[in-house]
Amino acid sequence: MEDRYFSTDPAQRAAARELYRSVKDLPLICPHGHVDPRLFADPDYQFGSPVDLLIIPDHYIFRMLYSQGISLDELGIPRLPVSESSPEASGGDLSTDGVVDHREIWRLVCEHWHLFRATPTGIWIRDELADVFDISLKLNRENADAIYDAIDEKLKSEAFRPRALYERFNIEALATTDAATDSLEQHRAIRDSGWGGRIIPTFRPDAVVNINSDGWHENIDQLSEVSGETVGNYSSYIRALEGRRAAFKSMGATATDHAALTAYTESLGATEAEAIFQRALAGESTAKDAARFSGHMLIEMARMSSEDGLVMQLHIGSWRNHNPQVYARYGPDMGADIPIRSEFSKNLKPLLDRFGNRRDMTLVLFNLDETTYSRELAPLAGHYPLLRLGPPWWFYDSWLGMTRFLDAAVETAGIYNLAGFNDDTRAYPSIPTRHDVWRRVCADWLAGQLVRGFIDEEDAQAMIRALAYDLAKQTYRLDG
Amino acid sequence: MEDRYFSTDPAQRAAARELYRSVKDLPLICPHGHVDPRLFADPDYQFGSPVDLLIIPDHYIFRMLYSQGISLDELGIPRLPVSESSPEASGGDLSTDGVVDHREIWRLVCEHWHLFRATPTGIWIRDELADVFDISLKLNRENADAIYDAIDEKLKSEAFRPRALYERFNIEALATTDAATDSLEQHRAIRDSGWGGRIIPTFRPDAVVNINSDGWHENIDQLSEVSGETVGNYSSYIRALEGRRAAFKSMGATATDHAALTAYTESLGATEAEAIFQRALAGESTAKDAARFSGHMLIEMARMSSEDGLVMQLHIGSWRNHNPQVYARYGPDMGADIPIRSEFSKNLKPLLDRFGNRRDMTLVLFNLDETTYSRELAPLAGHYPLLRLGPPWWFYDSWLGMTRFLDAAVETAGIYNLAGFNDDTRAYPSIPTRHDVWRRVCADWLAGQLVRGFIDEEDAQAMIRALAYDLAKQTYRLDG
Amino acid sequence: MEDRYFSTDPAQRAAARELYRSVKDLPLICPHGHVDPRLFADPDYQFGSPVDLLIIPDHYIFRMLYSQGISLDELGIPRLPVSESSPEASGGDLSTDGVVDHREIWRLVCEHWHLFRATPTGIWIRDELADVFDISLKLNRENADAIYDAIDEKLKSEAFRPRALYERFNIEALATTDAATDSLEQHRAIRDSGWGGRIIPTFRPDAVVNINSDGWHENIDQLSEVSGETVGNYSSYIRALEGRRAAFKSMGATATDHAALTAYTESLGATEAEAIFQRALAGESTAKDAARFSGHMLIEMARMSSEDGLVMQLHIGSWRNHNPQVYARYGPDMGADIPIRSEFSKNLKPLLDRFGNRRDMTLVLFNLDETTYSRELAPLAGHYPLLRLGPPWWFYDSWLGMTRFLDAAVETAGIYNLAGFNDDTRAYPSIPTRHDVWRRVCADWLAGQLVRGFIDEEDAQAMIRALAYDLAKQTYRLDG
Repeated sequence: MEDRYFSTDPAQRAAARELYRSVKDLPLICPHGHVDPRLFADPDYQFGSPVDLLIIPDHYIFRMLYSQGISLDELGIPRLPVSESSPEASGGDLSTDGVVDHREIWRLVCEHWHLFRATPTGIWIRDELADVFDISLKLNRENADAIYDAIDEKLKSEAFRPRALYERFNIEALATTDAATDSLEQHRAIRDSGWGGRIIPTFRPDAVVNINSDGWHENIDQLSEVSGETVGNYSSYIRALEGRRAAFKSMGATATDHAALTAYTESLGATEAEAIFQRALAGESTAKDAARFSGHMLIEMARMSSEDGLVMQLHIGSWRNHNPQVYARYGPDMGADIPIRSEFSKNLKPLLDRFGNRRDMTLVLFNLDETTYSRELAPLAGHYPLLRLGPPWWFYDSWLGMTRFLDAAVETAGIYNLAGFNDDTRAYPSIPTRHDVWRRVCADWLAGQLVRGFIDEEDAQAMIRALAYDLAKQTYRLDG
Repeated sequence: MEDRYFSTDPAQRAAARELYRSVKDLPLICPHGHVDPRLFADPDYQFGSPVDLLIIPDHYIFRMLYSQGISLDELGIPRLPVSESSPEASGGDLSTDGVVDHREIWRLVCEHWHLFRATPTGIWIRDELADVFDISLKLNRENADAIYDAIDEKLKSEAFRPRALYERFNIEALATTDAATDSLEQHRAIRDSGWGGRIIPTFRPDAVVNINSDGWHENIDQLSEVSGETVGNYSSYIRALEGRRAAFKSMGATATDHAALTAYTESLGATEAEAIFQRALAGESTAKDAARFSGHMLIEMARMSSEDGLVMQLHIGSWRNHNPQVYARYGPDMGADIPIRSEFSKNLKPLLDRFGNRRDMTLVLFNLDETTYSRELAPLAGHYPLLRLGPPWWFYDSWLGMTRFLDAAVETAGIYNLAGFNDDTRAYPSIPTRHDVWRRVCADWLAGQLVRGFIDEEDAQAMIRALAYDLAKQTYRLDG
Repeated sequence: MEDRYFSTDPAQRAAARELYRSVKDLPLICPHGHVDPRLFADPDYQFGSPVDLLIIPDHYIFRMLYSQGISLDELGIPRLPVSESSPEASGGDLSTDGVVDHREIWRLVCEHWHLFRATPTGIWIRDELADVFDISLKLNRENADAIYDAIDEKLKSEAFRPRALYERFNIEALATTDAATDSLEQHRAIRDSGWGGRIIPTFRPDAVVNINSDGWHENIDQLSEVSGETVGNYSSYIRALEGRRAAFKSMGATATDHAALTAYTESLGATEAEAIFQRALAGESTAKDAARFSGHMLIEMARMSSEDGLVMQLHIGSWRNHNPQVYARYGPDMGADIPIRSEFSKNLKPLLDRFGNRRDMTLVLFNLDETTYSRELAPLAGHYPLLRLGPPWWFYDSWLGMTRFLDAAVETAGIYNLAGFNDDTRAYPSIPTRHDVWRRVCADWLAGQLVRGFIDEEDAQAMIRALAYDLAKQTYRLDG
């Protein structure tokens, strides 16, 4: 349906269609996401089964099924190995990992597909099947096998190799997200292959910054190894991070990414930073140490950005692994991340006091508390040169979520303090669909502004292009 | 007006009409409300005057009139007896209880009926008069007497006995809300009468759980009496509550209901629970004791639900009796309950850590802070098998309030993690109107989804039925 | 465009047009704003250049330009004199104050006017140019000079003297906002001139109430001087304030205005109030002292209002001068005020406990956290006789902001607990435009209610008049 999702008001629909048409074929700028670079390093990379591609890696899908009483085992989600350190994962249960047949999983999902009615996941999968796989059957019990077979057949074809899809999707640039300790060998392999796609890494240091996270000591050891800087104190730690940033930059990175539960920032003195770092190394740091150190490192990362020019991204407000049983049994990213209330006006002030007025730096803010859009984020971005607002994140990457974002943010911040769109997905074949939904939302929203006389035709044309393409490219410095 | 409240977009309106038609005659499921069971115990129960029926018990109405300077005395709201314990209630004022003529009260209300323009109360009363009383006059000074007489006449007729209205309203089941200490004699009388209506109690233990509430000691004494368990310590207290739950269940109850200012939960050890309980018995408990004990008892109630299968309801965020003068003079439930900000992701975690993954239990969440819908409630319900979201509560039980709820919750939680509708009313004759508004809202909202292409016809048909009927029945286990 | 901004649904648009027509020519009630009374004191007052009029005083405009990298110097914003007390303002920079040519500033603004697409500022300026200056050119680089010249020519004409515009704008009453220490000489001059316009002062005591604000001691000295009451202790301070209120009232004031970061209120005992006041005089008060004293003074101001009948206004939630560099260099009101989360149910309770039930007093609440509309403000205003809700403030004085306000507040509070509109502007020629936008929003919103059948024609007519005119006049007691 060409006009899908647009308002049914004839004037607005016609205007939306026109605006959408003017941008629907623009290349895709993908400055933030979680696609595995391996897909592009191996020219013959092949996706597995339809379930490997669409179900097992997609916590948007299995969280909903889980909420309605379907176990993660039934969906083929692999359990962690049972070890003495995670007693909750034992208890007589047998891991069923690998036992469940993928076709059976697919049938189970299709039988419960009604759960996704009126959800973004429902729309993405439908549009992706139609647009990428050329399958227009509705997911349900009856069609399950036919759809499974049709996807499976496509996945085996040359046309469905990731590099071929990259061309077909008309992607101009795609950034992955990579641990600070990543060797970037996949990225080097892509570059060395001579292939023309632009796949670039993003520096994500959370695992070496959050001193109370699982595995922090191992991550620091890895940081020493990969950076060549023996991290034994705060200053070598900083040098190691700076070195890694330089390495990322040399592989094409234009941005960093940081996740934190809150936007708390605080500048620690050198002595205090060292003291906390030493307590962390000794395994004696407190929860308060961790919060303060994270807040300090956000400012420190901004300082590094002020020097190396990497765009800084901040994702705030996700309580990761909220469900301890699921975490113990299946590990992280299992659909159990829950948003909390966010605050920026106070929390971000120490960082803004130092870098807020910089015109040559960019900090892109994301969060999961939409009350901040109009109350804090738009007023902040409408004043501080440093700031841009990221598109609606996660649960808000939906038709109504994006509409509310535009409603709440644009009147105060305008559109030129926005960072355009990013798909933030690990589901590679869903990328065109996600951009398409964003472009449709923006076309419909601008059409509403146009037919009611808030903006004129010239404004609308310029704004749709900016939102669909230019702002992302410019914000993330991908025009270089 | 058959199409009232629907969008005026022709496509959406036609779709809404169609969807609404498919459910408007379905029976009413009323799983949560405050109708007095006495109405059904006495087959000849007769409502009093129009004012007794529509004004005096309805704090939605008199709070608005009060806000514009009309005293509660003028509206016939009875004052508490003046006692030495409530000095604020004295001060030379004479109680006017009983003095005000009901026809005069009615005229006063009608003269000020413009205050209810564009409010849900305004709509409910208008639709109720039209649909239940067959009165299509507009409430105003001129029509006041004619309307009064018309209602009064109806109320005296056989057709307006509660049992007759139950049939006419096409109610399938109606749950009342009853103190844990209630003898359930009204419910027993209904059952013994052999009448076919399904009126069931709901176990509401707040008055014996909130150790710092007025009258707690008396309530504990009553609990001892009605349970046959002398409540002298924490374990006899728990046994008494378990006994009462069993008694409620034997009278048909399928659910419990709990109100708290916040969603704070905490598991106390047995020793600590006992210590707080003993301090409470001795009149020495602190505010902190009370908050912790309430939080503990929510988990304890969940534990009991895990054993007896009663669906648990939690109503969060109403600051009861915010106005001390009104409370002192007129008592509770006088339109002076004010919402406060709510938080669930952190507060509910201890309870979820224990029961969140249970597929055989249900906890229905309600609250008065709509920012939680998209930020916390929908993500929680979209993951934890335990949770369902109750319909918009109280001030949000309105056209725009319900629309915002669907907008904010469905994209993340889907509709199958919702609990359908409940009218939550003590105004018995308003029940059909309230369900009608919900069904219209859902029809209009789904029609919008349909004509814009988010869902198809088959989806819309299934969803309207689920929202109008199935979800409430299933969530509250009324299909047994 | 006569129907601008209205819904494009034909039924709603027609109804909106009709409702709008019925009020568009009603006189303007301007009960709260920041126009300088000097404009009216001097019958020959002449505005400066177009930049003096439209850019330099308007922080809505230059904050947005600043956010996109244009310096305040380039926009002609005067720097504070460099002094030793503001080291941040030095650092080798030269003040460019006065150096920048106004025509160049105008061109710079016009070149960047796309930043204001879809913002209220963009709409105000466009409508103001069209309606007040009869200029229908679009602001851009090409038109910059022509527009500059056209405005400049108008500004030199007799028709653009403030008093002439007052008549042309059809203003019925206009309140300024004046420090408690203001001599009111401008107001006296207006009155003595015999001119028929109604320009009245508003008592704003923040600068003598916030004991930790810059210049408090000087302000107290000024208070002593202007009141004739030597302020050496708390009781003389209170007497001085009461004296000033009486002086304001004698010059026609009907209201006071109070700004605070939070709505915190607390009644201090006389001894404690005196102790804090003495610490403040001695320069030894703490941040906590300041917060408590402000909270106490809000209640004290309510007490004075209960005696002198001045309507009390409370503006909550703006973190003033959030950007320390901008504050140090340019001073206050430089577009760097950032909202914070607000809370009323708890914070305002001590004040409401004393005055909430007063039917003869009015407290008008404003704030910058729109989550409070439905959660706290509408329920509070829908119960307490004291309260009315001010129109959407600041960033929310926009089409969507006002629509969300009506959506969130009216169902619970009705419209008769609203305070109507106030323009809150220092940009005098924008006043008709701002009222026009409000009247259009209300017409469109009521039209939506009308065509969907929530209200009828009679309701809609009464409501549009109330919102456009009556409520402001009545709330602020301007009908006397």
